Amino acid sequence: MNSSLSMPEAPAAVLPLEEQPGDGGPADGRPADGRPADGRPLYRQLADQYRRAIDNGVLRPGDRMPSMRAFMQRHGVSLATATESYRTLERDALIEARPRAGYFVRARQAATLPAATEPDLAAAPGAAQFVGIHSAISAIVSKFQRYPDALNLGGSTASPDLYPTDALQKAALRALRRRPTLLTTAGHDQGDPELRAIIARRALDVGIQIGADDVIMTHGGIEAVNLALRAVTQPGDTVAVESPCFFGLLQVLESLGLRALEIPASPTTGIAVEALAFALQTHPDIRTVVVVPNLQNPLGSVMPDTHKARLVELCSRAGIALIEDDPYRELVDTAQPPRSLKSWDTDGTVIHCTSFNKTLAPGMRVGWINGGRWHRRVGMLKFTQSRHNEQLSQVVLAEFLETNAYERHLRRLRDRLRIQRERMAAAIAASFPEGTRFTPPGGGMFYWIELPRNVSSSAFFEAALDEGIRVMPGTVFSNAGRFDHFIRLSCPSTDLDQADEAVRSLGRLAARMAAHARTP
Amino acid sequence: MNSSLSMPEAPAAVLPLEEQPGDGGPADGRPADGRPADGRPLYRQLADQYRRAIDNGVLRPGDRMPSMRAFMQRHGVSLATATESYRTLERDALIEARPRAGYFVRARQAATLPAATEPDLAAAPGAAQFVGIHSAISAIVSKFQRYPDALNLGGSTASPDLYPTDALQKAALRALRRRPTLLTTAGHDQGDPELRAIIARRALDVGIQIGADDVIMTHGGIEAVNLALRAVTQPGDTVAVESPCFFGLLQVLESLGLRALEIPASPTTGIAVEALAFALQTHPDIRTVVVVPNLQNPLGSVMPDTHKARLVELCSRAGIALIEDDPYRELVDTAQPPRSLKSWDTDGTVIHCTSFNKTLAPGMRVGWINGGRWHRRVGMLKFTQSRHNEQLSQVVLAEFLETNAYERHLRRLRDRLRIQRERMAAAIAASFPEGTRFTPPGGGMFYWIELPRNVSSSAFFEAALDEGIRVMPGTVFSNAGRFDHFIRLSCPSTDLDQADEAVRSLGRLAARMAAHARTP
Repeated sequence: MNSSLSMPEAPAAVLPLEEQPGDGGPADGRPADGRPADGRPLYRQLADQYRRAIDNGVLRPGDRMPSMRAFMQRHGVSLATATESYRTLERDALIEARPRAGYFVRARQAATLPAATEPDLAAAPGAAQFVGIHSAISAIVSKFQRYPDALNLGGSTASPDLYPTDALQKAALRALRRRPTLLTTAGHDQGDPELRAIIARRALDVGIQIGADDVIMTHGGIEAVNLALRAVTQPGDTVAVESPCFFGLLQVLESLGLRALEIPASPTTGIAVEALAFALQTHPDIRTVVVVPNLQNPLGSVMPDTHKARLVELCSRAGIALIEDDPYRELVDTAQPPRSLKSWDTDGTVIHCTSFNKTLAPGMRVGWINGGRWHRRVGMLKFTQSRHNEQLSQVVLAEFLETNAYERHLRRLRDRLRIQRERMAAAIAASFPEGTRFTPPGGGMFYWIELPRNVSSSAFFEAALDEGIRVMPGTVFSNAGRFDHFIRLSCPSTDLDQADEAVRSLGRLAARMAAHARTP
Repeated sequence: MNSSLSMPEAPAAVLPLEEQPGDGGPADGRPADGRPADGRPLYRQLADQYRRAIDNGVLRPGDRMPSMRAFMQRHGVSLATATESYRTLERDALIEARPRAGYFVRARQAATLPAATEPDLAAAPGAAQFVGIHSAISAIVSKFQRYPDALNLGGSTASPDLYPTDALQKAALRALRRRPTLLTTAGHDQGDPELRAIIARRALDVGIQIGADDVIMTHGGIEAVNLALRAVTQPGDTVAVESPCFFGLLQVLESLGLRALEIPASPTTGIAVEALAFALQTHPDIRTVVVVPNLQNPLGSVMPDTHKARLVELCSRAGIALIEDDPYRELVDTAQPPRSLKSWDTDGTVIHCTSFNKTLAPGMRVGWINGGRWHRRVGMLKFTQSRHNEQLSQVVLAEFLETNAYERHLRRLRDRLRIQRERMAAAIAASFPEGTRFTPPGGGMFYWIELPRNVSSSAFFEAALDEGIRVMPGTVFSNAGRFDHFIRLSCPSTDLDQADEAVRSLGRLAARMAAHARTP
């Protein structure tokens, strides 16, 4: 494992700023508490001091900030001033709190790149279209397979090293020894009752009012979304989706003979709820909406609570199912994970789908669904489609959830993904050409990059493969021909130097293509 | 484990017939070789001598026959005569060879019951109907759940004791130790490549010409059948099915919005191919046919080779897919398992679906599909429906198949199922009332029993539950209201005495209901 991935070593204490070499700014020196040297409040002066130290590279991403007590002593300030200084730095995304570890310097990933363009909400939604995306995706997969050694920045899970292989293996061995008939006896139709009880308890903790019988285990999150769509649509029906949209969902729509209506989504706040509200008026044939509220794929956006509440209300009033695909919620990089849409649901409008594939183990195909007021039909469809899930993974998962091993793993996973994201973001900012736009995601493993307008991601995808790097072209995230100058990257491995190098290669490639297209 | 299930104890030697009490038939005494005492060939006279001993109960089911050498010495006959005597008895289903153990007396299960009624092939097929069976099945399941302690003669797998729990557990432990990342890494989209290669090799051995890429692993056989139907139909299409038909298939048709056209099936030879040929002419909208060629559920019938070849040819000419659901082939109780329909396929007409759920492990949801000329579309549907299967079961299965552990298990399973079937059949014959008809199945675990015409299986099902026994009423095996005086039984446990007792209770119940209905 590359050492750059583990938690950065925290220096025993950051040097007092005034002793640091090269830190010759005008605000140097220790201002006394309550004595504004230049008219600005003291907390702001101190915050600026640290901002310059970070800008100058004296404090580097991952460095530990002084403890609050050390900060007060060093600068001779009150707790209130110290707290306000840290709050200011935190608000400016320069430092961050990590639970039980203190404050750390954040990478300034987006400092040199403008945020991605917000969608044009005034534009009327187009017509709903039958989906024809699978052959394009198959072509991409075929091309990937012709370059088996290419570095995969086009995947959709974290590096295998980030998942708790040893602990899961041990738990599975224990489960098999304890319950030798796991492989030879059929499980409960809805899934392991103990696991479902645990899931229901955990759901209650985050405001979702369900019992064990309201949970049906599924073969990953994708089966859950399939079941949800099958429960509330017929072939030919129209489904509103986010734009850009996870291509796997578009493939599901295609396979079920459904039409997609793409609703713009913001890189920061996800689906544009008012654009959906408008579409529900102009397209009364919309039968359901599928939304990834937390860490949308590919955007990495997290819907604000007000948007979530409004979305649920909107669908409830329209009498249509709101299908929530929520596999990334626990990867959102805040101390408290955000809420699911389901937690606002009062009348069974929301069909909640999620899985542990992305958070715990890509090899364990364990997802679950609550079908809202369509739950009975969802249960029938699951039974007829694939019967019960295999039991071993469910028993292993139950143990992980009950012992807090899952929470411990999640904290570690989020920490390590954050380091990956910050390294990748810095490399993107440093190497991609002018005209590139990028909004850092709120967590997870995806980077949705807007290339200069004259760069085609299809051509970029091909050229990148020639350089030995897999990327996902933006075109597969839309059924309406959008996003041709976008790419989705993910961080494939714990070798961050290798990832950096690949991103720099991609940046040079984008620069060449942008220049070439300008001067034909 | 109940000792009655293990191989019956073989007496050291069967008494010479002439010394046996009560064996006073005219052919008593030892005829000399080559001297036909009564005009019949000597082998036939000897065979009849043993037949009477079996009929009289002198030789009981499970008793070991004399070795060939002992037979020759005892009766002073040549090897040719001895062999022919045994062949005659075997052909008459009175004795059976067990590999490496000799010949044993078989149970005469159906001796006292007439064979089940053959379907009326002259009747024109009815109209294709949308399926509405799920609510009836749910009602049955709900009723089952109200009697949790009832003995389950309504299930569809063999007793857990008949599956190789220990060996599977050990193989799984080995697999997890050898490949610790099995749970944390995503598998191949189509399934484990090594397993698919093994399956393709084994398929070649039984005349199915496929390679590893032509195999897609599925979540049990039911997912395979789902994918097959989704690949070749649209909602509203007509699907020809066997009548009676496995209710799980009817549920799948219902969930996919398909219409069922029921084609009569014979208790001995399965689907009536000429009736299907007629239906294809009168119902040109038939889009596909689903057939269980080997050990049809519930009939237990095995299609003769000539019927299989004709069926494949028929579908090929009609240009429609023939969906073969073949999970029981290896449970057919002949030295050589019968052929799959797929082995006659020359143009991709047959979509072959099967699983290891029934033969190896009900808890391992491992099935596979070859989609014939729809294989590409099947692959797309599997990917969009549930992605790849979990890996552990596939690795375990690969080991079982490679080491012949699977074949050893199958031989043992067939032996033990045969003993169960014979005990159950004898109990059925002994206890059910006049008017009951029953054709012993060719293997497997199902008993399709035709009750006296005035006994309703729905009422019987309820009354049996009151007596603490679950049975499957015949009504759920048809969408057209057929089979109300049929029930399907299965043998639930290795406690054959308990099963006998339950069957006797059911027989008494059937007798009471038949008498009651006659004299209202």
